[in-house]
Amino acid sequence: MDVALRGGTILTMDDGRLGIVDDGAVGVVDGRIAYVGAASDLDDTTVDRIVDTSGCVVTPGLVNAHTHMPLTLCRGGAQDVPEIEWMRRALAPVRNAMTDADRIAGSRLGALETIASGVTTICEYTSGVADLVEAVYEPLGVRVAAVETINEVGTGHSGDPDDPYPFDASKGDAAEERAEALFEEYGEHALVEPAYGPQALDMVRPERLERLHERATDDDRKLHVHVAQGEREARQIAARYDGHSTVEVLEELGLADDRLVAVHLHGASVDERRRLAESDVSMVGNPSSIAAIDGITPPVVDYGAAGGTVALGTDQAPGPGGHDFNAELRIASLLSKTDRTDPTAFPAWTALRAGTVGGADALGIGVGRLAEGAPADIAVFEPGIGAAPFVEEPFHTAIPNVVFGSPRARDVLVEGRFLVRNGTFVDADPEAAVADAEARAAALFERAEADWRAAGSELVDAVDDGWL
Amino acid sequence: MDVALRGGTILTMDDGRLGIVDDGAVGVVDGRIAYVGAASDLDDTTVDRIVDTSGCVVTPGLVNAHTHMPLTLCRGGAQDVPEIEWMRRALAPVRNAMTDADRIAGSRLGALETIASGVTTICEYTSGVADLVEAVYEPLGVRVAAVETINEVGTGHSGDPDDPYPFDASKGDAAEERAEALFEEYGEHALVEPAYGPQALDMVRPERLERLHERATDDDRKLHVHVAQGEREARQIAARYDGHSTVEVLEELGLADDRLVAVHLHGASVDERRRLAESDVSMVGNPSSIAAIDGITPPVVDYGAAGGTVALGTDQAPGPGGHDFNAELRIASLLSKTDRTDPTAFPAWTALRAGTVGGADALGIGVGRLAEGAPADIAVFEPGIGAAPFVEEPFHTAIPNVVFGSPRARDVLVEGRFLVRNGTFVDADPEAAVADAEARAAALFERAEADWRAAGSELVDAVDDGWL
Repeated sequence: MDVALRGGTILTMDDGRLGIVDDGAVGVVDGRIAYVGAASDLDDTTVDRIVDTSGCVVTPGLVNAHTHMPLTLCRGGAQDVPEIEWMRRALAPVRNAMTDADRIAGSRLGALETIASGVTTICEYTSGVADLVEAVYEPLGVRVAAVETINEVGTGHSGDPDDPYPFDASKGDAAEERAEALFEEYGEHALVEPAYGPQALDMVRPERLERLHERATDDDRKLHVHVAQGEREARQIAARYDGHSTVEVLEELGLADDRLVAVHLHGASVDERRRLAESDVSMVGNPSSIAAIDGITPPVVDYGAAGGTVALGTDQAPGPGGHDFNAELRIASLLSKTDRTDPTAFPAWTALRAGTVGGADALGIGVGRLAEGAPADIAVFEPGIGAAPFVEEPFHTAIPNVVFGSPRARDVLVEGRFLVRNGTFVDADPEAAVADAEARAAALFERAEADWRAAGSELVDAVDDGWL
Repeated sequence: MDVALRGGTILTMDDGRLGIVDDGAVGVVDGRIAYVGAASDLDDTTVDRIVDTSGCVVTPGLVNAHTHMPLTLCRGGAQDVPEIEWMRRALAPVRNAMTDADRIAGSRLGALETIASGVTTICEYTSGVADLVEAVYEPLGVRVAAVETINEVGTGHSGDPDDPYPFDASKGDAAEERAEALFEEYGEHALVEPAYGPQALDMVRPERLERLHERATDDDRKLHVHVAQGEREARQIAARYDGHSTVEVLEELGLADDRLVAVHLHGASVDERRRLAESDVSMVGNPSSIAAIDGITPPVVDYGAAGGTVALGTDQAPGPGGHDFNAELRIASLLSKTDRTDPTAFPAWTALRAGTVGGADALGIGVGRLAEGAPADIAVFEPGIGAAPFVEEPFHTAIPNVVFGSPRARDVLVEGRFLVRNGTFVDADPEAAVADAEARAAALFERAEADWRAAGSELVDAVDDGWL
């Protein structure tokens, strides 16, 4: 056995609940889990490297199921503004000034932050995602669900929200070609899981959506789509599809099945969400992001109650603030409780399942459970000043304390390789990443300043008034 | 000058807004701030110790305006349960098994956690608070608003929620004597600010409330009271005071003025809160705690809109999860946004003011602003992987990024003395505090186990079902 984590509480997530094993151990051979069970039954003499995890809780590596990491370089650039201003008047002037190197620097910063919180799988949703896989995710050794954005909205829209966007098929073709090239290059890669990313139902022609879905079905691939994001989308869809809703169109096009990962869903009705859940569509909720951008709590509680697979994501830093995934588990629970005036809503154990096996199942990757034969993607949390005590009897306080205390991970392993050990990155250099991001961001915001002022969001007034 | 922090962005909070000074410096003499201004105008030759804060943001030390720190030892012990079960069936069996040494261990753990997040003033609300001041807060060197709980509910209540509690004046007398002894012992202490803590209007006789208020007025002291906490209190007050509400009784007794720090207030009406705000009553919201225990968002937005002073607190760990005060700023903002479906609600700058000058003004302590002559209670935040970038132009991304990124503080000073330097406690030993808490908590939960099972909260089922 190459490595064994010995001692502490193991949460396997492999029994439909948390799969709690006290005084447990996890053994790894060739990047796969080869042993899960009692520490006392582990044969030490066959283990090359034993890591003491007594007093800790050992979980499957967390799955951050929806991110746009390049925008981490714009963190702090767009929040506390009206939803109607957020994208065009606050974020866009900065985002549009980003260079390719900025995108890489932002992604590296965000990836390091989320890995430090115990994440072993990042779902990156972007246009030209292969560049980030090559420059950021492969070098870091983290698992990535690489979603290529496909958007064929052309230029020259009237500006009337009820007037359907013009389409530019050549733009869609180019994106689809990038997606196919991604499957070609990374289809067999151990740590990269490519997927199609039609940006939203109003931004891609129906014939392309049907073709992508057919190919996903044939080749066991996933489609990640932002679904029912709000009023703008609803009006576009109604205008184009004879008054129908986004979910109705999804169903009519035959997209509502287990190929589909539906991101957001707050604009759908309860009944529509129930139908999607019953059709084996997975959902990803992004609590901090949607709270910050829209003032809305993602409907993770009713999606789970309807039997749907619920995953969680940090989405984008301008808005939520970052990619600390444990903080996201806490926010998901607290927002769900206040949304329903119910302190039992989205309890710690549900948050932990959503953050591990929920994300893995949504993305269609065989991680998220500590089970023999599964990839050895593992997170270890210890009781620090913000999470102690970890008591095992009469119940495991580590379960709420990892969720609500949001500690950083002590150790993070992907395919049995330590990315983080004793709270420190083994190979990556976070200080250099921060220094690079600081320098690039200063230049980026300076380039964007004139456009940002001209765009005239409420943030401009806040600055002039001494608040920002 | 004893020490100067030189460089970076200073947020003085001293101009009614954030008081932003770029390339600033703060100088300290004898524990007081002796210089705030441009770094270039600081005469280096007169400074014994210069600390480089370039690239950082320097703020007044944060003020955690309401805590019950001993319960940190029970962290993870009571959340995700119905409100009706929370106190009696989930928390009480564990809390009642605590020893004095447990209370000290829990307080030390919670204090270290909150100091690490940049807090320099902790408001501790407990019975026998002097013991904690002596054993925990004085040795740590942190500023403490020490509130002695006064509660004179006697034994033998019928259990009918509409039947007023019996009072035991001798219990109230003993608590009042402890409070007076606290003023006697610590009234002139530089770092200890004693206060009266009538637990709630239904738990103290009106004649005592009037007497305490009179004394507070004469001697410039504060009364911290849990006000309008929910239905149980409302029914008690209505039964005792002829159908009136808590706020009406406060007003009738003459308590609604600038002596009063009203904690919670979610059970009051919007109009009642407006009246309290206009009467110069301060409020403390505890977002994570009240979200976790009640599924409710504290009414900090409308209290602020009515012109009231708003402070924030972490309350107690069983419920919110801990005392990371920066995380509390984030939660306060996100919960406010979703509560009002308004992404502009409780923006980062409002959260930062509530967490500094708001808390200081509520507690009546002259901290919370970086101004010449004020105590040198200061926090320094640097851009790490979870908060970078800190850009200064065209606006200060450090402001949202400290709130939403929730970094730990790089440096924490109380009266000019470093408690934390470069992310490490100077004198305190957090590892020992955690080890002590772990050992004590294991024994505590074991002692409590039989009672906890017998109390039969929903958590017992969760354990038996493999969720906890």
